[in-house]
Amino acid sequence: MIYLTRRECFNAAHKLCNPNWSDEENKRVFGKCANENWHGHNYELFVTVKGTPDPNTGFIINAVDLKNIIQTHIVEKVDHKNLNLDVPFLKDKFPSTENFAKAIWEELQPHLTATNYQLHAIKLRETENIYVEYFGE
Amino acid sequence: MIYLTRRECFNAAHKLCNPNWSDEENKRVFGKCANENWHGHNYELFVTVKGTPDPNTGFIINAVDLKNIIQTHIVEKVDHKNLNLDVPFLKDKFPSTENFAKAIWEELQPHLTATNYQLHAIKLRETENIYVEYFGE
Amino acid sequence: MIYLTRRECFNAAHKLCNPNWSDEENKRVFGKCANENWHGHNYELFVTVKGTPDPNTGFIINAVDLKNIIQTHIVEKVDHKNLNLDVPFLKDKFPSTENFAKAIWEELQPHLTATNYQLHAIKLRETENIYVEYFGE
Amino acid sequence: MIYLTRRECFNAAHKLCNPNWSDEENKRVFGKCANENWHGHNYELFVTVKGTPDPNTGFIINAVDLKNIIQTHIVEKVDHKNLNLDVPFLKDKFPSTENFAKAIWEELQPHLTATNYQLHAIKLRETENIYVEYFGE
Amino acid sequence: MIYLTRRECFNAAHKLCNPNWSDEENKRVFGKCANENWHGHNYELFVTVKGTPDPNTGFIINAVDLKNIIQTHIVEKVDHKNLNLDVPFLKDKFPSTENFAKAIWEELQPHLTATNYQLHAIKLRETENIYVEYFGE
Amino acid sequence: MIYLTRRECFNAAHKLCNPNWSDEENKRVFGKCANENWHGHNYELFVTVKGTPDPNTGFIINAVDLKNIIQTHIVEKVDHKNLNLDVPFLKDKFPSTENFAKAIWEELQPHLTATNYQLHAIKLRETENIYVEYFGE
Repeated sequence: MIYLTRRECFNAAHKLCNPNWSDEENKRVFGKCANENWHGHNYELFVTVKGTPDPNTGFIINAVDLKNIIQTHIVEKVDHKNLNLDVPFLKDKFPSTENFAKAIWEELQPHLTATNYQLHAIKLRETENIYVEYFGE
Repeated sequence: MIYLTRRECFNAAHKLCNPNWSDEENKRVFGKCANENWHGHNYELFVTVKGTPDPNTGFIINAVDLKNIIQTHIVEKVDHKNLNLDVPFLKDKFPSTENFAKAIWEELQPHLTATNYQLHAIKLRETENIYVEYFGE
Repeated sequence: MIYLTRRECFNAAHKLCNPNWSDEENKRVFGKCANENWHGHNYELFVTVKGTPDPNTGFIINAVDLKNIIQTHIVEKVDHKNLNLDVPFLKDKFPSTENFAKAIWEELQPHLTATNYQLHAIKLRETENIYVEYFGE
Repeated sequence: MIYLTRRECFNAAHKLCNPNWSDEENKRVFGKCANENWHGHNYELFVTVKGTPDPNTGFIINAVDLKNIIQTHIVEKVDHKNLNLDVPFLKDKFPSTENFAKAIWEELQPHLTATNYQLHAIKLRETENIYVEYFGE
Repeated sequence: MIYLTRRECFNAAHKLCNPNWSDEENKRVFGKCANENWHGHNYELFVTVKGTPDPNTGFIINAVDLKNIIQTHIVEKVDHKNLNLDVPFLKDKFPSTENFAKAIWEELQPHLTATNYQLHAIKLRETENIYVEYFGE
Repeated sequence: MIYLTRRECFNAAHKLCNPNWSDEENKRVFGKCANENWHGHNYELFVTVKGTPDPNTGFIINAVDLKNIIQTHIVEKVDHKNLNLDVPFLKDKFPSTENFAKAIWEELQPHLTATNYQLHAIKLRETENIYVEYFGE
């Protein structure tokens, strides 16, 4: 079992704000992250697949194919977007880094299941000081 | 003459969109950066002062004082904000990285002029692939 | 189960020197790290908690709360300190990176135990080439 | 159980090309990586050992000893070399990052087995966007 | 005058070997870099243009246009190539980092001369420890 | 004229404390940096030489020679040392980053003066947020 990780980057806006709460409550819990006019981040996404190398290529999965799957199913949907407003797969989900990472797993998992490999981990870095990991369970 | 640089980080939303242009024209020139619902970045700001060290401290400027000046005059005004909507010193300025760096210089310069040092450079990194520098002229 | 990691940085002095050994023995085993007048590092500390996001916030733990816990219980006690002389929680412990990481776990673990999350890992980077991880057992 | 990781760097040339395939097939599968005149990378190798600290030193393994083992058994054999032509331990192995990481494990494992520690992981970064991990099984 | 820098990355093989010298002389001067079967690097290229922002866009040059110019005139010619064998613009040039940076300037300069901006600097990083800069004179 | 930069790293302890001042005054000006039992840093040193490439090698200066000069004249004297106590070339100098960078210039300059190149800049990074540059005048 070998683990291959590919990094892709994107930039997006969001805010953290519970629609069932008052402005004061949102401000108290989310602080600056609740700013009503949004803020944003340069996200770094690390997608890890695990599997057995194909004897003909030495690859678990061709890293170019992995890049294309991440681009098609995630980056094109979130890059230069507003995570609260523009992203169908985040609709009705609260865009914390935790929930965002889990939602990325659910988008990618059907496209990263094969005979010799499967999705292992999503790591999503929001700033140089904060990142989240999800392993599917 | 010695040069001292301090880095501070902040996160903000913006969009690039000329209000005198049609949507098509904005899309053609600014591409994804014109997304009407905003996007955002983790900005890294590098402020360089140049001067002669004080013989009593060995400092051009105390790096803690420099940090406090950058925090007060820039970071508190832009961190977790919308650059197009929330920032008085960017009002009526188009928030390209170029214009943003120049506006930061203009905000900081009066607070970084002293007998033994002066502001030398603003470097503003928008993504790991793009940064802008301004030297005041 | 989702994993959230927060990075905090600090600077400290230490030396590696077994008080039961001769200077020659310390020099032979610890090399430059035994320099009697100390040396120091910029440490990077990564604290990982694992848990289930709160449905109201999307957070396992508010990253600002996590930061404050790390600052109060670790950074304020070690930043700009001498690890051999100044840090009560390292008293009588040999300040190798391994022992330091384990001691940080023991300091933080009581403050990172809650209904929906718990401490998962301490990662401590001493230089760009060396880091240590501890998972509590 | 504590985990200690040491990073070492090296630069090497390689190409990805299945000798049983036509040029067209190699081009189709490996793309630019099949360029017959080679390309190359700055590799970053992270070697993780796990164990119990020695009470006299606080070390799982002296990081200088770990460095020397990695230098002797890996870096001296691959640094400024051609992975397809110059490296005995890669002979008849297809130099994908996956296979290279596994081969490094096999070279290092006999030299990193001791009473109080053992090899835990090989992480090999080929570019800032791609890395592979192997845990020995 | 504002300075805008864009980073692009590529991977290439090369060797340092003066064809007028004996193998011994090449080995003595170039050491491991003279390995006859090549070695390689992940290069980071930073291209800086200087100019005045266009009042309609806030841009000195659209960073996407700058990216495309660098991709077309440099990256497509050197990525996954052998610098000694495959690159017309390096023909008969000794591929030291110094000469390579100067050759990149000469390739890009005609495409980065405009009414409101011009090429200012080429910075080429060969490893994390070595980089070269050229300012056109 | 081409500029070549080489990075070398070292770890050292120091404190900032004016011997002519009271403890209170030192605490007020230098804050945590005045801790009497020292603190320390991982320093990154960037040495830039400028010159004309030798036509036989393509080098301004062989990067291995540059490394050896920096190692001999700086790193061996400061690595794993106390900057206030152990370093002859810093004796009677206040070890602020500013003064340290200037002292490194004075140590290296006589060894980096040649027919075809000369020392251009010293850049010394103390933390990821602070660095100093000196150009010899």
